[in-house]
Amino acid sequence: MPLPQSLLDQLGAVFGERLSTAHAVREQHGKDESHFPPCPPEAVVFALNTAEVSAAVKICAAHGVAVIAFGTGTSLEGHVAALKGGICIDVSGMNAVLTVRPEDLDVTVQPGVTRKQLNEYLRDSGLFFPIDPGADASLGGMAATRASGTNAVRYGTMRDNVLSLEVVLPDGRVIRTARRARKSSAGYDLTRLFVGSEGTLGIITEVTLRLHGIPEAISAAVCPFPSVEAAVQTVILTIQSGIPVARIEFMDDLMVEAVNRYSKTTHQVAPTLFFEFHGSDAGVREQAERVQAIAADFGARQFQWATGTEDRTRLWVARHNAYYAGVALRPGCRAWTTDTCVPISRLAECLLETKEDLATSSLISTVVGHVGDGNFHVMLLVDPDRPEEIAEAETLNRRIVRRALAMDGTCTGEHGVGHGKMEFLEEEFGEALDVMRRIKTAIDPAGIMNPGKIVV
Amino acid sequence: MPLPQSLLDQLGAVFGERLSTAHAVREQHGKDESHFPPCPPEAVVFALNTAEVSAAVKICAAHGVAVIAFGTGTSLEGHVAALKGGICIDVSGMNAVLTVRPEDLDVTVQPGVTRKQLNEYLRDSGLFFPIDPGADASLGGMAATRASGTNAVRYGTMRDNVLSLEVVLPDGRVIRTARRARKSSAGYDLTRLFVGSEGTLGIITEVTLRLHGIPEAISAAVCPFPSVEAAVQTVILTIQSGIPVARIEFMDDLMVEAVNRYSKTTHQVAPTLFFEFHGSDAGVREQAERVQAIAADFGARQFQWATGTEDRTRLWVARHNAYYAGVALRPGCRAWTTDTCVPISRLAECLLETKEDLATSSLISTVVGHVGDGNFHVMLLVDPDRPEEIAEAETLNRRIVRRALAMDGTCTGEHGVGHGKMEFLEEEFGEALDVMRRIKTAIDPAGIMNPGKIVV
Repeated sequence: MPLPQSLLDQLGAVFGERLSTAHAVREQHGKDESHFPPCPPEAVVFALNTAEVSAAVKICAAHGVAVIAFGTGTSLEGHVAALKGGICIDVSGMNAVLTVRPEDLDVTVQPGVTRKQLNEYLRDSGLFFPIDPGADASLGGMAATRASGTNAVRYGTMRDNVLSLEVVLPDGRVIRTARRARKSSAGYDLTRLFVGSEGTLGIITEVTLRLHGIPEAISAAVCPFPSVEAAVQTVILTIQSGIPVARIEFMDDLMVEAVNRYSKTTHQVAPTLFFEFHGSDAGVREQAERVQAIAADFGARQFQWATGTEDRTRLWVARHNAYYAGVALRPGCRAWTTDTCVPISRLAECLLETKEDLATSSLISTVVGHVGDGNFHVMLLVDPDRPEEIAEAETLNRRIVRRALAMDGTCTGEHGVGHGKMEFLEEEFGEALDVMRRIKTAIDPAGIMNPGKIVV
Repeated sequence: MPLPQSLLDQLGAVFGERLSTAHAVREQHGKDESHFPPCPPEAVVFALNTAEVSAAVKICAAHGVAVIAFGTGTSLEGHVAALKGGICIDVSGMNAVLTVRPEDLDVTVQPGVTRKQLNEYLRDSGLFFPIDPGADASLGGMAATRASGTNAVRYGTMRDNVLSLEVVLPDGRVIRTARRARKSSAGYDLTRLFVGSEGTLGIITEVTLRLHGIPEAISAAVCPFPSVEAAVQTVILTIQSGIPVARIEFMDDLMVEAVNRYSKTTHQVAPTLFFEFHGSDAGVREQAERVQAIAADFGARQFQWATGTEDRTRLWVARHNAYYAGVALRPGCRAWTTDTCVPISRLAECLLETKEDLATSSLISTVVGHVGDGNFHVMLLVDPDRPEEIAEAETLNRRIVRRALAMDGTCTGEHGVGHGKMEFLEEEFGEALDVMRRIKTAIDPAGIMNPGKIVV
């Protein structure tokens, strides 16, 4: 369906050369890092400020044309796919850190600022922003997908760390969801409603985030285990003991091997936990001793410590590149990534049964997880040109999701719904899904905001 | 407007003698602890389970009659006032602790369970529920008002500690807002939408809460200061230093005097901070030393320690009774309580300017606050039969709220909107208030759920 010329004319008047219908630009904006085939928008505008986003949305609304926001394109459930065509608003150029307020431990950024950029900016302030999904995602995108990652077990997710949002509504009006006070009981929690709404209710144009003091002491450790179960039981007991570990990450043996190859590391190939401890010198020592004792009880062979900044950076860069390391196991493949999250008491059962499924599959697969939250990812490596592999991955994914739901878990711990997880929401939410539909219809009655995602 | 007989017949068929139209019962259910005049419902039903709540809501919906939930009646903004008449559903009899899951650090309770009852129940488990608004409120009510209180500076508010809710919708359907996983990116955050919705979108019939391990060590201290400013600057620097203090509470000198009288304590009459520290033995010592050093820099005269359980209990009981102690300063009066919350950097300015206002007022007033969050309450003691006193309290309240809004704060940190704070939402939210209205209309199109609260 070609775009009406009046729409292009109006967008052109606002964006000039920052409006593009070039094939390559459209292709790039129609795909994320998932296995889903690209689905390009009909045009892309590169917005530089809130007024431009609002203008673009108003023009699209007047024409009944779909609007999709784009940050870094690192989402994993087809969030940016233009399923109904329409206009992509690329906000990556809205990348200014607007105000840092060290005295309030908060910061306001434009949505295109990435997490690494923010932490680089904060470098000399003694503060940092902890949420770390691996990819150097934009903070607007992270808010939109309710992202979390390796530090969530201690610092929470985007849900807990967004104080306030500026949002362009589907009719182009600009709202602010909350004041900057640390807590409020004033009305419905619009901040939390837009966090995780994946562009289906509006476009985030400013994000106010909580910051945290850089801990006095940080230490990290790598700990291989004799079995997956021993590793997972260590995690469970650590969490149940209330030890405020900052990171507790699992990799299965193949994932460790993949990381060694990709990042030139030399970790022992075994089911492995990666830990990080934050606190005072004494506090970090205390936490580490307690965790070591638990791990030893489950037969852990050794703790390799990384206390220097460089060692730690190398370790976490390797962990962060796990996704790319996994994909590199099979050249030309795409990764189909699951994202279930279950109550911690069910984690061992869930992970072990899943490993049994994987053992019987013909697909190469690895497991990596933010296990302190009960969240893990299976990466299924598929050849996108082989429908039988896609079908097998689909079947496995469904089985893994249904298992998590049966354990009172969720189909997605941190990646979001996009169009990839929509089929599971009925099962996860039952009648509550109707409440989501009503909210969608109330805020976006014409259905122009990122259509075909979360609810239809 | 008398209730239709068919409504009473249908409710009678479900509730039998647990349906009451007695004057005393209605009066009791039409008032909370605020200064607002009572506004009784036309009948009260005492529900014992979710099915009964659902049945009552369906019957009311069929008749277009208002429905108001009632827990302990300890709210402070007229939340339970039956402004449009209708039926009050008293859920205080739904007071079973349904499932404690120590291995997942969570619990599911019926909405009438109070916070003290839950902690009593958990006594031997090594776990506790930290949110503590002072009053022994019901957990359903605390979720509905997004309550917090003295521990929020460390443990967060009800927003952060509710994992999932069961809710009866305005048409009587029963939904569950989320699974029990610690995090999820599956769709709109319905849990956070219903937390703080004050019965205007549905009635909470089950609450699943996060629990926390009882800290290995706890110590508390009382610290009088030479001035309000010295106390507040100590708070600000403590928070900015990232010291994970569990409680940091302020009382002005008159409040301390009132508490001494009411609770037979002997605290020095001065602007005072009450601290509590949670952690390991070493951690608590470390935190306390750091805070003591900060306080000394601002001229604090002494730290009175309470490390024994009994001493601490006495101390916090006195703090919790501050509301009643304040009211007792003037027999026969009612308390008009403000609830602003501002970014911590503005706290000193906000509190000192407010104290200047109070100094010029003819009303007796005290100040008490969860200052670590930037939240404080002014208690204005008014004779409900003297319109000129009500008018003066109204004027002061407006001035205090507008000051907080001008500092990027909120009109209510923890009490909620009820009908008492509605006039400020336009100023606090602007166009965002329209989004709240749309949500209300989408979920409760007939407007029968606690009408006249939050948005109309």
